Formats: sequence, C-alpha cells, structure tokens
Amino acid sequence: MQNFDYMTPTRLIFGENAIEKLHDVMTAFGKRVLLTYGGGSIKKIGLYDRVKEILTDFEITELPGIQPNPKYDPSVLEGVRLCKENDIEVILSVGGGSVLDCSKAIAAGAKYDGDPWDLITYKVKAQAALPIVDILTLAATGSEYDCGGVISRTETNDKIGYVDPLLFPAVSFLDPRYTFSVSKKQTAAGCADAMNHTIEQYFCEDSTLLNDGFCESMLRSLMFNTRKCLADPEDYTARAEMMLCCTYGCNGILSLGNSDSGWPCHAIEHALSAYYDITHGEGLAIITPRWMLHILSDRTIDRFVKYGVNVFGLDPTLPKQEIAEKAINETYFFFESIGIPMHLHKLGIGPERIDEMAHHIAVNEGLENAYVPLTEEDIKKILTDSL
Amino acid sequence: MQNFDYMTPTRLIFGENAIEKLHDVMTAFGKRVLLTYGGGSIKKIGLYDRVKEILTDFEITELPGIQPNPKYDPSVLEGVRLCKENDIEVILSVGGGSVLDCSKAIAAGAKYDGDPWDLITYKVKAQAALPIVDILTLAATGSEYDCGGVISRTETNDKIGYVDPLLFPAVSFLDPRYTFSVSKKQTAAGCADAMNHTIEQYFCEDSTLLNDGFCESMLRSLMFNTRKCLADPEDYTARAEMMLCCTYGCNGILSLGNSDSGWPCHAIEHALSAYYDITHGEGLAIITPRWMLHILSDRTIDRFVKYGVNVFGLDPTLPKQEIAEKAINETYFFFESIGIPMHLHKLGIGPERIDEMAHHIAVNEGLENAYVPLTEEDIKKILTDSL
Repeated sequence: MQNFDYMTPTRLIFGENAIEKLHDVMTAFGKRVLLTYGGGSIKKIGLYDRVKEILTDFEITELPGIQPNPKYDPSVLEGVRLCKENDIEVILSVGGGSVLDCSKAIAAGAKYDGDPWDLITYKVKAQAALPIVDILTLAATGSEYDCGGVISRTETNDKIGYVDPLLFPAVSFLDPRYTFSVSKKQTAAGCADAMNHTIEQYFCEDSTLLNDGFCESMLRSLMFNTRKCLADPEDYTARAEMMLCCTYGCNGILSLGNSDSGWPCHAIEHALSAYYDITHGEGLAIITPRWMLHILSDRTIDRFVKYGVNVFGLDPTLPKQEIAEKAINETYFFFESIGIPMHLHKLGIGPERIDEMAHHIAVNEGLENAYVPLTEEDIKKILTDSL
Repeated sequence: MQNFDYMTPTRLIFGENAIEKLHDVMTAFGKRVLLTYGGGSIKKIGLYDRVKEILTDFEITELPGIQPNPKYDPSVLEGVRLCKENDIEVILSVGGGSVLDCSKAIAAGAKYDGDPWDLITYKVKAQAALPIVDILTLAATGSEYDCGGVISRTETNDKIGYVDPLLFPAVSFLDPRYTFSVSKKQTAAGCADAMNHTIEQYFCEDSTLLNDGFCESMLRSLMFNTRKCLADPEDYTARAEMMLCCTYGCNGILSLGNSDSGWPCHAIEHALSAYYDITHGEGLAIITPRWMLHILSDRTIDRFVKYGVNVFGLDPTLPKQEIAEKAINETYFFFESIGIPMHLHKLGIGPERIDEMAHHIAVNEGLENAYVPLTEEDIKKILTDSL
C-alpha cells in the first residue's frame, strides 16, 4: 500500500430542492458573483431564472457560452477579465464539468497578475483562488468534488489537466432533477467518462481489496443506473445514484493507497479531443477496450479476471484468458449498447493525424510510467485499433 | 434516495513516516499545544519521544491518562481548564479513538464560557472550537475522519454521542506501524467496531447499489485483513488496509443518500459500556448477531440474503431463510474466531441491570425510529439473548 496525502473539503448539498440553501451559501462568500454557464440549456430547464430569482440581492456578472472542452481563449481569459474588472468575490458555476473546469481556471487566474496560462502549465504556482460554488446539471466528470480541471488551447492542440488543492469547489449543489433533460448521447458519454475514471484507478499494480470493491461497485452501479436513465430519463432514483457515482470519479477516494496507473486512456483521449474537439466520454469509451486488449498479458491477466468476475459476473471457473477476453468484450458491448459510436471514424476521425497525436502523447503524457508502460508505437497501435 | 448535506474536510496524511510532516502541519495552527494521550502506550512505542523531538520549538501542555470510554470528569473538564489557562491554540491528540473523542469535547469546551456539558448535551450550540490534529494508534472508531465523539459521565450512566461539524480533525496522521503493537484483543475489538459501523449503515430501508457495494467491500476487507493482522501483527499491508477501512466507518461516506437506520446496536452498546465500562467493540460484536436474529422477518429478509451472498459468499440458490440464518451465524462465528468473548456474562455482566438499561435506552435513544423499531421489550430481549 502506497502512502498518500488526501483531502476533499467540498460540501455536497444533494437532492431535490437542494437549491433552497443557495442564498445562505452564497451570502457567506460575498455579494459580487461571476455566474458562469454554457450554451443555454440552463435557461431551457428554468434553472437560470431560478438562480437569478434566488440571488436578486446579489451583483451578478455573467460569463455565458462556455463550450465543451472549455477553451483558454476566449472563456478563461474573458472570465479572468470580468473578475478583475468587477472585483468578483465568488464564482457560481451552473452547468456541467466543462463550465466548472473553466470556472476553476478563472478562479485561479483572477487572483494572479500575470498570464493565467502560467498557472495552468505550472510555470507559476497559484497562491490563491476565488471560492467556487457550483450547481451541477450533468453527471459525468466529477469536477464538482475534485480540485482539477481540463483546459484546451486550440492554437497549440493542448488539452491540459490543471490540478491544485485551491480549486476544490467550496460547495456543490447536486439536484438530480437538473439532469432529467440531459440527452441520451450525453447521458451515455457521462457514464463512459465515470466508468473510465474508475477503470483508470482499478487497473494498477498495487491496490487494496477495499478499493477494488469500491471500484467494482461503482462500475456495476453506473451500468445498471445508466440503462435505467436511458429507458426513463426522469427516473429520479437512477439519475440520483448516477450523479453520486460520478461525483466519486476523480477525487482519489477510489484509489487511496493504490499505486498510480498513469491514467493512460485519459492521456490518449485528451489528444483526441484537443485535435478533434470530440465528446470526452465518447472518446474514452472508444479507447478503453482497445487499450485493455493491448495491455492484456500474463502480467495483467489476473486483474482482468477479477474485473470480469466481479463487474460482469463472469464464471470464475473458465480459463483465465477466456474470462479476460470476455470481460473486454463486455466492456465494448456495454458502451455500444448505450449508444456510443464505438469507432473513431464514426466521429469523423481518420488515420491522417494518428502519427502526430501519438507523438504528442508520447512526448507530453509520461506514459512510460503507466501501469503498463506505453511507447509511441503502442499509442499509435491503440489509436489505429480504435479507428 | 434521500437528500443529504455532506462534508469531510479532514486532511489524511497516511503511511510510513507520515509524521515527517507533523512540524509543518502544526506550525500552521500555532505554537501553544495541548498534547492529549492515554495510558502510556505511546511512550512504549517511542511515539511520545518522537513527537516531543519534532515539536521541540513548541510550548506543549500535556493531558495524559485519558481512559477508554473517555470521561467527562476528570478528562474533559481538566483539558478545558488547561486550554484556558495556557491559551492553547491547537490540540494534538496522540492515541486511539477515546483520546480523540475526548479531545473533540475539549476543543469545543475550550471556546465556551459555561459548563462544557451544555455543549455535549446540545443545550447550547458551540460557536467555535480549537483545531485538532491527531496521530492515530488504533484502527477502530473512525473518529479521525468524522466530527463526532462519545463522552461518558459516570455518575449518571450517560454515554453521549456529541456531533458537530466544528469537530472534524484538521489533519489526521495515519501511520499503520503505530498499530503493530496493538494487542490481539484490541485489534479484534477495533475490527468489530468498524464492522458494526458498516452494518449499522447497510441495514436500512432505502439504500443504493453503490453504497451496498461499498459496505460489502468494507466488511470483506475488514475480515480478511483482521485475520492477517492477528496472524502477523507486523503485516504492514494488512494493518494499513485495516486502518483505511476503519477511517470510513463513521463519516457517512458509506451511506450517502441512504435512509437513517438509527444505529440500534450502538444505542444498546452505549448503555452497556456506560453501566459496565466494557470495551466498545466487544459489546458491539456481542449485540450485533442477537439484534440481527431479532429483526429477521419477511420485511428484512432480502437485506440479510444480500448480506449473506455478497459478504460471506453464501450460495444464492439456497432458500432465503436459510441464507439469512447462515449469514447471522457467520457473523457470530467470525467474531468468535477472532477471539471476542461472545457472551455478556464473560465480561462479568449478569441479568441484574438489564431492565434498567433497557429502560434507559428506550427513553433516551429514539429506537422507535430505527430501521426495525425497537421497544423497551425488544431491547430487553436482545440484551437477555446476549447474556
């Protein structure tokens, strides 16, 4: 078991009408608020109006239009400018993981005099950040319960994970009803995202019986509840459990004491969505089973057997190789069954830039230290198998 | 799924040599420290000397001699007095859950002008508390990761759970090596404590697939690793995983969104140890299977079947009643196998005060709202069956 230094101070206010506590929560941070959101879905579901109604006595500056795979330019830069100009005291992020990730970068940038890119690339360590409160409308990334965000810079094809304990949301509001209107496509992508977060932590060299059980429970619950959400988008219980599952994805609670796996599928997918701006969860779902097949070996087979037996209920008396291959197939077929296009070409991605992406990943992502080390050739193979 | 409002801001510094960060951590809180500990085991293992050596430049006031089932008088009162007299800035609790529970009550009392009993009984809501840092030497209560403590007042046979978000430890140091010297008796009692914490959250009306899996993983891991710790007290990996498991016991993470079970075994055991000052974990181990048998019914049987199949690997094709009874027997035999005296009479407790205890519990513990409501007669029956 590995040493660790862990903390997640975020307060979770979860359930129907959680938002009733919003006014009290916000009051503790100040009256000058930057309200961040995305393309307007929060207006369609009435959440925007509800927030404005609750916060009538606050001074609200708005940053709308934050895109999926949130962009450094214009969103982060614009947010930082607005915070400084309006002496913002707290950021209220209303939306999914992209809005929240962007808000985290803004929170740090607002307290820094130089170019926020210095912080995101760790050239300079942030000394402070604005407090963040969020109202989540998508179960997927777990950003509501971690201190990281992923920011894309289009002109350099960079998609960078920016992590700092200063960036934990102070309070996350999680009302499963706000996810009722999430499309089937985004529901499935959210599930794939959270499942991959779990898989990235489960497949490692050194893990505990406890963490293995936690991860297996996550995966079973995510599959069961996603199917229910797709069958009935307003199934409160299924949406709620899915929301809770996703919350645990990235704050480390699933792998305390485990060795670091290197998060290889994320490393590969980040290049894919930096180059092609695809939906993160779909990219992960496509990469995951190809990566699994690529790393299956005598060294890793026992992990796959455990995964197959405990997650998919496979017969433990079968030959190991058969269980492992079945488990990988089950993973693939589950993603396919929830409607994810399981080939890169279906997302409009051809072989043209695979060499370039593989090189970018090999140089920037440190996968030589992953659970199963991956060379540029390995990455090229996984990407090619995913076409 | 139930609404919840959840937070655990404690920082966990876990692993070999975690204590190397102690000086930096303490410096952030101030130089005037109240060092709390128990009967001297921290001196035997060299931890007391190590702490003093690390904190040579701190002003340390000591409160030794805190007993198991920590006492309001003298420990809490004496600690509060020392804090006020010495203008203490931070409490450093070195020991097990009893020392830490006592330290929490002191932390609140030190910031209150009246009788600290007012706070513990919720007559007055605490407005502030001293920060607490702890170094844990026993895997059991989970107090290192929750905001509650249990305080006994001998003259009134009260044993009261005192819970307030102000009482989360700021930082908990968890070095599994400090538990190498824990006796077989205390190792087993710690396991029973943590298993019961899990069982109290698992047996409820409304739970999630996710939480059920978390709890089942906890129970399997606790049993597996306790056996290893008993076979080899210096098995680092087993001690470490046991320590991590116990940490999750009481902060709610195992049951977010579950309905409240009422924690009936704890309610009953608290009276037992208030009247007889027995080891909490042993009391719980004795009560648990008797309580299970008492509440087994058509309404609860599916929960017992799930428990039996997923925790003990019982054959799911057997008749339900058989699985449920076997699961309860397995629980009993596991506790017996790790050396816990499974009858109250073995702890010197006879039938004499059962009526009195049952009345005390029925009046004070609100078990009419438990998962399976318990009347005074039910409690009497469970206690009598435990003799």
